[in-house]
Amino acid sequence: MSPEEFRKQGKQMIDWIADYYENVEKYPVLSQVKPGEIIGQLPTNAPKESESMDQIMSDVNSIIMPGITHWQSPNFFAYFPSNSSGPSVLGDLLSSGLGVQGMIWATSPACTELETRVLDWLAGMLQLPGQFKSTSTGGAVIQDTASSAALSAILAAREKKTNYKTNDSGNSGKLVAYVSSQTHSSLEKAIKIAGIGKNNLRLIGVDENLAMRPDLLEIVIQADLKAGLSPFFVCATVGTTSTNAMDPLTEIGRICRKYELWLHIDAAMSGTAAISPKYRHFLNGVELADSFSFNPHKWMFTNFDCNCFYVADRSVLIKTLSILPEYLKNQASESGAVIDYRDWHIQLGRRFRSLKLWFVIRHYGVSGLRYHISEHVRIAQEFAEWVISSDDFELVAPAPLNLVCFAHKNGNDFNRKLLETINANGKMYFTHTEVNGQYVLRMCIGQTNTKEEHVRLAWETIQETAKELSS
Amino acid sequence: MSPEEFRKQGKQMIDWIADYYENVEKYPVLSQVKPGEIIGQLPTNAPKESESMDQIMSDVNSIIMPGITHWQSPNFFAYFPSNSSGPSVLGDLLSSGLGVQGMIWATSPACTELETRVLDWLAGMLQLPGQFKSTSTGGAVIQDTASSAALSAILAAREKKTNYKTNDSGNSGKLVAYVSSQTHSSLEKAIKIAGIGKNNLRLIGVDENLAMRPDLLEIVIQADLKAGLSPFFVCATVGTTSTNAMDPLTEIGRICRKYELWLHIDAAMSGTAAISPKYRHFLNGVELADSFSFNPHKWMFTNFDCNCFYVADRSVLIKTLSILPEYLKNQASESGAVIDYRDWHIQLGRRFRSLKLWFVIRHYGVSGLRYHISEHVRIAQEFAEWVISSDDFELVAPAPLNLVCFAHKNGNDFNRKLLETINANGKMYFTHTEVNGQYVLRMCIGQTNTKEEHVRLAWETIQETAKELSS
Repeated sequence: MSPEEFRKQGKQMIDWIADYYENVEKYPVLSQVKPGEIIGQLPTNAPKESESMDQIMSDVNSIIMPGITHWQSPNFFAYFPSNSSGPSVLGDLLSSGLGVQGMIWATSPACTELETRVLDWLAGMLQLPGQFKSTSTGGAVIQDTASSAALSAILAAREKKTNYKTNDSGNSGKLVAYVSSQTHSSLEKAIKIAGIGKNNLRLIGVDENLAMRPDLLEIVIQADLKAGLSPFFVCATVGTTSTNAMDPLTEIGRICRKYELWLHIDAAMSGTAAISPKYRHFLNGVELADSFSFNPHKWMFTNFDCNCFYVADRSVLIKTLSILPEYLKNQASESGAVIDYRDWHIQLGRRFRSLKLWFVIRHYGVSGLRYHISEHVRIAQEFAEWVISSDDFELVAPAPLNLVCFAHKNGNDFNRKLLETINANGKMYFTHTEVNGQYVLRMCIGQTNTKEEHVRLAWETIQETAKELSS
Repeated sequence: MSPEEFRKQGKQMIDWIADYYENVEKYPVLSQVKPGEIIGQLPTNAPKESESMDQIMSDVNSIIMPGITHWQSPNFFAYFPSNSSGPSVLGDLLSSGLGVQGMIWATSPACTELETRVLDWLAGMLQLPGQFKSTSTGGAVIQDTASSAALSAILAAREKKTNYKTNDSGNSGKLVAYVSSQTHSSLEKAIKIAGIGKNNLRLIGVDENLAMRPDLLEIVIQADLKAGLSPFFVCATVGTTSTNAMDPLTEIGRICRKYELWLHIDAAMSGTAAISPKYRHFLNGVELADSFSFNPHKWMFTNFDCNCFYVADRSVLIKTLSILPEYLKNQASESGAVIDYRDWHIQLGRRFRSLKLWFVIRHYGVSGLRYHISEHVRIAQEFAEWVISSDDFELVAPAPLNLVCFAHKNGNDFNRKLLETINANGKMYFTHTEVNGQYVLRMCIGQTNTKEEHVRLAWETIQETAKELSS
């Protein structure tokens, strides 16, 4: 495709996306297709000859669009937001257009240095302690997901505890890690991947707010030490996926210091809230952590993928993940004056992801980000008030920020039916979780364009549907 | 940013990228900035208030662009291509615009079903054996990189060999894996990550063409078995990173069958060549493999990230990587009628990457892809002929496809000086490797717009610079 043709087709694609944003509320939020309905419309074999962009876009409209669940609809309240924004999409487009590889500094110095600076900006915006900045002992890297960040943290912790010998000799079978029963499933997956085994992952019990109990954590660590095992890693969560529970970071951090365990903090969605001074207190205790990660691709208007992974001591991470074959050697790396981000994550190749983050932060400004985040929290808190004031519904867990967990008083089967009925209608989309055997409805409010009117309409829909199902 | 503003800014960005493509040859291919030069121009703190797109793009032009190494220049011959194309960038833009999560089928059915179909197309295009298709026992998934694909293969192999007990109990210290001394460093990294330890990774010797010697492989496997160890995994490479060496797949595959080892084939760059029937023979033996991966983001005009990872038996991969928390449960997944790609890789979240692959295949058509790949090979072979005919240079390794490894006869120091002098000039960019102690120059030909004239000019530059340095 020539530059001239790209110019023409690119502008048509921009128009298509702008039209989509204007009309996104007209689509059913949850795709209503049946399994196999999309694939059944696609030819079995690749086309032998070239097809036109018009043909392709015609299929996008007729075949692909019915199979889209609209994460960018303001009526999307499911799982977690994976929000986005114009400047983010444009930053990502620029990244695609430049098509550079940032695996080492030399393969595009701007890709490394912009990333370092923007992540230092974010450290300041979240008031992270000084050691997490690149100008101190630590630093940060953009990873694809919080899953990969957690795996990287576990690997660094594993090597630190075993004096970098597991990388050489393999896992010894003595290492033990700790999470709460509410911690994201990616931690269990990472423990398996790292060769440690889920039998060596302890699920610590939680309190009435579903937050990890530090007293139980310490008891279990002591028991493991007594059994000759080697406790090495704790993951504390700021805002669990299920109910947005807040683990007590300071108390957990003190235990980690006492027993020399690596503390990783997973703040995937809720970390963004700390940009606003009103919500910064949820990160109190982060100064005791060895690593911290959150996802601007969840709630900070930055399209997937963009996880920010901070470490207090970069030398441990680099020593854990560094490999230097001859064909990657170069003067800049050998001088030690540059960062090679390849040594900060699992993959070797990497795209220029900091562009979209830079675009977002500059477009909104810190004050703009604070405003939008605070608005989401305000609306969610209002929704929680409506639930509390209602005769038929109840709040099931504390709602510290933008996630409200609630249930109709008619029991599990009724709530399941209520959820499925509403989602099948297409006007909104929300999902569920389970809390102590109870089927719980989740309203997660964080899509870029979600306003009070959308949440009000959602609440009306929920109430009306519940009434219809009750009668 | 309103849809109207996005429409305006988006078109300006498209113009910017089209202009860039028109002028890409005017930039020095390898960025000439010094360490710290980019970051030193970026403010220390994030802006408090919103900034305009004009301000941001002004900084892109003045601060970022000098720090770009131009992977999309037709004069880029370094490392491997990370090529791209108009339709790919537009497919990626559509993916950013839709902003969907494809972690499970329900979160956007089209994201899963298009991926499955397009990867089946590619299986057909590469003439992969039937078991790698989704309609049989296997199937495929788009991963970010060949590094992640190799890690996934190792994990599946680990669990299959240990009857899924390593996931539970951790690594036992008995597992042993095999690669050649020329295999990509990501395999060593993955073996470390998986908790197996690099002492349990055997580097098998190579023949005069730098291909793995199956006789040595079998001897080492037998020795390990005799020592009570548990051989479980071999990675064979179709086109090593260093010199494009081709491991003998059939012989290695027979050994893997005999001793019940998982065979993974890494064809990161060179796999694409098999789209052309002329080069399909390099994949002969793939029918004996358990997994196979190649990167359309290297040589198939698809921008990063896009690795295609095929398995012959999907049930092993899924059983290895599956985790199902309550908040992800849904009717479609529970019915068993759909694929949930979350269970096929390390991460949970995933973007709609098959769109760009679909756009590329349809825009070029199979015949178009074959034409462009064959042209790259033809030009590379021509370059190899020039080297062979030259008095001053020699070919250092066979050049089966698009990578030519050569050296000036004046020795290592001269070749290093030659490379550094040319790269500092900015007209072209190429890199080096080491073969048996020899410093070797690499010309890798695969950027989308590289034509014979670019390679001819590169050869003239190399010859002239060598003459200047000699005199």
